[in-house]
This record gives sequence, C-alpha cells and structure tokens, in this order.
Amino acid sequence: MTNLVDRLSPEARNAPESGIVEVFNAGRERQDLIPLWAGEGDLPTPDFICQAAAQSLARGETFYTYQRGIPPLREALAEYHEDLYGRPFSPERFFVTGSGMQSIQLAVQASSRPGGEVIVPTPAWPNISAAVEIHGAKAVSVPMRSTEDGWRLHLEDVEAAITPRTTALFLNSPCNPTGWVAGKEVLQDFLDLARRHKLWIIADEIYALFYYGDDRRSPSFYDIIEEDDQVIFVNSMSKNWAMTGWRIGWISAPAGLGQVIENLIQYSTSGVPSFSQWAAVTALKEGKAFLQEQVQRARTGRDTVVNGLRRLNRVQVTVPDGAFYLFFRIDGVADTRQFALDLVRQTGVGLAPGTAFGRGGEDYLRLCFARRQDHLEEAVRRISAWLPKI
Amino acid sequence: MTNLVDRLSPEARNAPESGIVEVFNAGRERQDLIPLWAGEGDLPTPDFICQAAAQSLARGETFYTYQRGIPPLREALAEYHEDLYGRPFSPERFFVTGSGMQSIQLAVQASSRPGGEVIVPTPAWPNISAAVEIHGAKAVSVPMRSTEDGWRLHLEDVEAAITPRTTALFLNSPCNPTGWVAGKEVLQDFLDLARRHKLWIIADEIYALFYYGDDRRSPSFYDIIEEDDQVIFVNSMSKNWAMTGWRIGWISAPAGLGQVIENLIQYSTSGVPSFSQWAAVTALKEGKAFLQEQVQRARTGRDTVVNGLRRLNRVQVTVPDGAFYLFFRIDGVADTRQFALDLVRQTGVGLAPGTAFGRGGEDYLRLCFARRQDHLEEAVRRISAWLPKI
Repeated sequence: MTNLVDRLSPEARNAPESGIVEVFNAGRERQDLIPLWAGEGDLPTPDFICQAAAQSLARGETFYTYQRGIPPLREALAEYHEDLYGRPFSPERFFVTGSGMQSIQLAVQASSRPGGEVIVPTPAWPNISAAVEIHGAKAVSVPMRSTEDGWRLHLEDVEAAITPRTTALFLNSPCNPTGWVAGKEVLQDFLDLARRHKLWIIADEIYALFYYGDDRRSPSFYDIIEEDDQVIFVNSMSKNWAMTGWRIGWISAPAGLGQVIENLIQYSTSGVPSFSQWAAVTALKEGKAFLQEQVQRARTGRDTVVNGLRRLNRVQVTVPDGAFYLFFRIDGVADTRQFALDLVRQTGVGLAPGTAFGRGGEDYLRLCFARRQDHLEEAVRRISAWLPKI
Repeated sequence: MTNLVDRLSPEARNAPESGIVEVFNAGRERQDLIPLWAGEGDLPTPDFICQAAAQSLARGETFYTYQRGIPPLREALAEYHEDLYGRPFSPERFFVTGSGMQSIQLAVQASSRPGGEVIVPTPAWPNISAAVEIHGAKAVSVPMRSTEDGWRLHLEDVEAAITPRTTALFLNSPCNPTGWVAGKEVLQDFLDLARRHKLWIIADEIYALFYYGDDRRSPSFYDIIEEDDQVIFVNSMSKNWAMTGWRIGWISAPAGLGQVIENLIQYSTSGVPSFSQWAAVTALKEGKAFLQEQVQRARTGRDTVVNGLRRLNRVQVTVPDGAFYLFFRIDGVADTRQFALDLVRQTGVGLAPGTAFGRGGEDYLRLCFARRQDHLEEAVRRISAWLPKI
C-alpha cells in the first residue's frame, strides 16, 4: 500500500498531517476531556440560528443555488461590514464559501500559481501553508520575533523574503495562535510594501471582533485600502456565531474579480447550501447580542488562564491582544508535541502543540480560552498539578 | 479593474465561465421557466431526510467533526455499496466530501500535479477539465465517437493521448451528457490500459442507479478491480436522493490513501457539517423507495422526451442508456450556445448548450429529463412550436 501512496502527486502526498488533529485523535475518547486544542468554543450554535436553517429546509430550499451566495446573505454581509467599518460596502464584493478554510484555498488559487511563492509569517495556523503547498506553490515562512512585549512582525524580515516569484503575502491579525494584533501603522506599512512589489495581500481578520483593546474591533485593512488595492479578505461565520460545524465562510474582494471567484467556487464545491446561508443571514442580522456575549466570555476566559498560569513559575505568558488563544511556553518543555500528547493522555487537558504552527512557534503551546469558566479553571488546576511531575 | 484581474494567477483567470450557468443566468427570472439545463431533478429533498438534519441541529451537533466523515455515514456508505455490488466494503475506504464536485477536485489533486496531464473523454461535464486546469495540470480531451448506435469511447484514441506526463484518466459512466454506458468489457479494457501505463482512473459512476438496461445498476469498476488498483471513485448524494443543494459527496479509494485524502479535506473545506451527514445517513438507510421512484420517474421522462422530439424531423435523437439527459442535435442549428440563449428567452425552456461540454459536443443540446411529466411534455410542445420559426 505504501507503493500506492507513492504514486500520488508529491503535493498531495507531502501535505502534512495536522499536528492539532494528531493530539485531537489521541484524546478524543477521554471522558473527562477538556478540549482546548481547537479553534472552537464550547457553545453550540444558538437555537434562533439553527431554526432559520430548519425553516429553509421546510420551505424545500434543497436545490442548487447562486455560486456567489444567495443575494440576502451578500446583502447582510455588506450591512455587517458597513456597521463595523463605518463606510458603505457593495454586496457585489462578497462571495460565500464553504468555510474560512475554503476562502483561504480560493484566495491562494487566485493569487498564486504553481512554482510561485506566498509569504506566510509564522507562527501561523498550519492550514495556510498547507493550502499553498497543495497548490504547488511554496509557502515562505517569515518568523515573527518574540519580545517581552509580545510578538512583532518586522517589515524588513518580510521584505527580505520577497523574490521575483512572490505573488502574495498572508497577513493574519488578530493572529492565531499568537494573539498579536497589527496596529494601523503596521497595516499601512505592509500595504505600502505590497503596493511597491505588486503583491496580493490575503487578509485574514477572522478574529477582528475578538479584540481586547479600546475599540470594539481590531484595526483593519478596510481602514486604509482603496477599492482596487490587491487585497483579498478571507473570513468565516465560525468563530463569531459559534458556527464552526456549519462550514460557511466568505471572501471579500474587489467586485471586478467576481467572475473569477465565481468560477473558482463553481469548480471546487459549487456553492453552499441555501439553508445554511439562511442561518448565516439570521446570525448576521440578529446575532449581535450573542456575538457580544461570545467576546465577553473570551475576555473573561483570557483573564482566567493568564492569571492561573502566571502563578506557575515555569510558565511564560504574554497577554494576547486579540483572537482567543493563549500561546505560552513552559520552562523545561522542549518537545511540545510529546508534551501535548502526554498531557491529554495523563490529565485530559487538550492543548495544541506549537510544533503545529511552523517556524518560531515550536516551543509554545496553544490554549483556546473561548470556553466555560469552570472548565478553564479546571484545566489550569490539572496543568498546575501535573507540571511538577515532569 | 481589468488590470486587477490580469494580476490573478493565469490558472484562476483562465478558468472558463460555466457555459451552463450563462444560460441559467439568462433565464433565471422568467416566470414560466421550464429549467432543463441543470443536472438536477425538480423534487425537493424528501422530508424524512430533512428531518434528520433538523434533529441533529436540535441535538446541538454544530461543532467541528471528523475530517473523513462521521463513522455512521462511512458505515452506511459501506452497506450501500455492499448491497449494490454484492461484496464486502470497509468503511475505511469512504471519505465524505463537500460535493461530487469536491470529490473530483480532491481526486485530481491526489492523482495529478501541475504540469501533468489528465485524460478527459468528451463530451463531458465541463467542471472536470476546469478542475484539472485550475490545479495547473492539462486536461487532454479525447473526443468520443458518435455512431448510429450512440457514443463510443475508443481505446486506441485514449491510448494515443497518453504521454509521459499523463497521470490519470477520467472515466464517467453512465455519462453526463451523452448517456453512454460502458459495458463490463469496455471497463476491463480501460482498467488494463491504466494498469499497463500506471495511470490513476478517476471513476465517476454518479449515475450508476440511473440505468435503463436489465440490471438495477450500470456495470462498474467495482465489478473488476482489485483492492489496490489505482482507482479513485467520486460520487455524490445529489442525484439519487434529490440532494443537489446539500453539497455532500464521497470518495471511495483504497484505505491506505486515507491519511492523504484526510489531509486534502483538512486543507480545503475541513469537513462536512454533522447535521448534513446525518441527513445522508438517513437517505442511505431509508431512501431506497424514494430512489426507485426517482429512477422510474427518469425512465418515464426519458421516454416522453425521446418520443416527443423524435416526432420532429429536424431532431436527431439517440436513446440514452443511463444518466438522465437527452443529448441531441437539431438540423440547421450550428451555434448551440446562441440557440440555448434564444430558446430560453423566447420560450422559457432552458437547455444546456453542447458548447459547454467540450470537444465533440458542440453541435448538441442537453436536456435533463429527471423532471415532472407535464413539464417535459410542455417543453416538447414549446420546442416543437418554436423550431419552425428559426
């Protein structure tokens, strides 16, 4: 059978097994599991959102639909952005996809080609580089620098990584896993850099609302771009509205790219179920209170795990400015993959090993704090009790 | 804005607009529309299937799930295949995807690479070649030959198209759009050819149950392959159970490819909603009667349009052995794209132009007959009344 795998394309064969899924599979069956490894909260989708899907099903909306998304959802996305960024948006710039992941895949396909290069600052969600490499392009890692004040992405590091084959730069802020948030000036620097080198920016601002600064959302490329800048935004319904399992995302891009994006959707998944899209419409229009609650819950969770783990002398914690992860180091833990496997087997606490997040993240562990307060407290207790034993 | 499109990757930029969608968009708003252009019946998904999804939603199954598919669905797929092909199947060879289209995309990614070649007999569903080309590989068209007895795919034509860069051969039987069904000997010939040249076969037997011969399903590669033959089956819930809008498909492949296929799913859409998968479980387990009804309905529809259009002297009809399309020619109609656009605007009857299906299909029109009897009769009437005017 090895032989048969060898006959697959190298791009497919070499795609890495997700380092998160590996730990997930090791702990999946534990009864007392506290799963903090995934980018997923513990609340199911609110009932009023599920109802919208059930009602659409009852209306018989089970046929093929618009490749770009049903018009009411594209309109609801425009309104959501108008509210959030304080300026008008055309529904024509929104394209509904089968997940934030698919948005990334399509943005990579649109902006890069086999043999080309895409710059991905790391630590990063591993799926980004994997999507680039499956496409036959090279994901060029630019490690962020860890300082006492948190992570920094240096412009000169990124510029040094640009080659004639570079076509795109992936920028994720607020950042999974580090919690780094790019300020407006930083975004402007990278936009200027991209303009100078005629690069696409793939802007992943999925965690924009999970922001712990003074504003209700993180600084955004929307604050500074012109309509025809080469910026493709990838986003998802998953985090804001507890809809991870629904597989609905969106792309926001200049409307002139519409036909190309429609074609890429047509030839990959051919659209998203109407009934799921109606759930998304409802989430966008009626989900504000729930979203605020989600963000508040994450903020409380952040404080719980930051304060809890800081009490342990061995743990190095920087407070994240955004997203909903704590990315931390433990003195004396060199092999975080083995640590995460041992931890889940011994204590039932599931963390994602930093090895899953690429260069610069190997020594860290990622903990998702968008979870129940008592579970987070219990996780801190179990980690605190177990650490002295290793 | 043209400028911005020019900056996209050539593979994305050059992906063709679907020739079917173009006609669809031209006629979408007509009140008296009889849409026979799509590969879609007119029945909504049966209520008992929708209920399974609604119940799963009510159970709160809105989280990330297994990348390969939930175990009950993989088991139900194994049972379905056991029943249909009369031999045991392991659930481990089934992988749930976000549509038959995505199954094709992933099979292409697994079996071919940028710069490689995939042989696609034509006329064919245009999305196949498009998926190959977006991947950076070349779709090499091998036109089937049209004879008085219907379409034929010649082994020597396919063999002549094989080059050192060829890695895969796409075979679709029963065929969309031609209705061609490969007999067991034909399948054996192509399997032997693939073995000799160490090619992957991507086997699209999506219409296996829509077969109008003596058996209840069409001849299949499952009848002749060994476990470790390089055959990847792509399939879909869409046609059998009127679930086109759900976007659920599956891949069937040697279990040893499992980790690679899981990775390809992880890095494209990261799985399919649990609640949709429960609907699929219910369809597979309890949908037999509905499926038989669907097939019977298509058979009746086939007879209606064959007999109705044969009455027109100008129409050349070959009776399809499988699938649910009539692929026919009209004397004096050279530009089928323009004809289809005119027809839908003038009469409200929507057909797919043969130009959408690649080399060898340009002169034909495709009509989907998995539809209500009275609508099919009305469509024949309208075409009959309009033809003398052009």
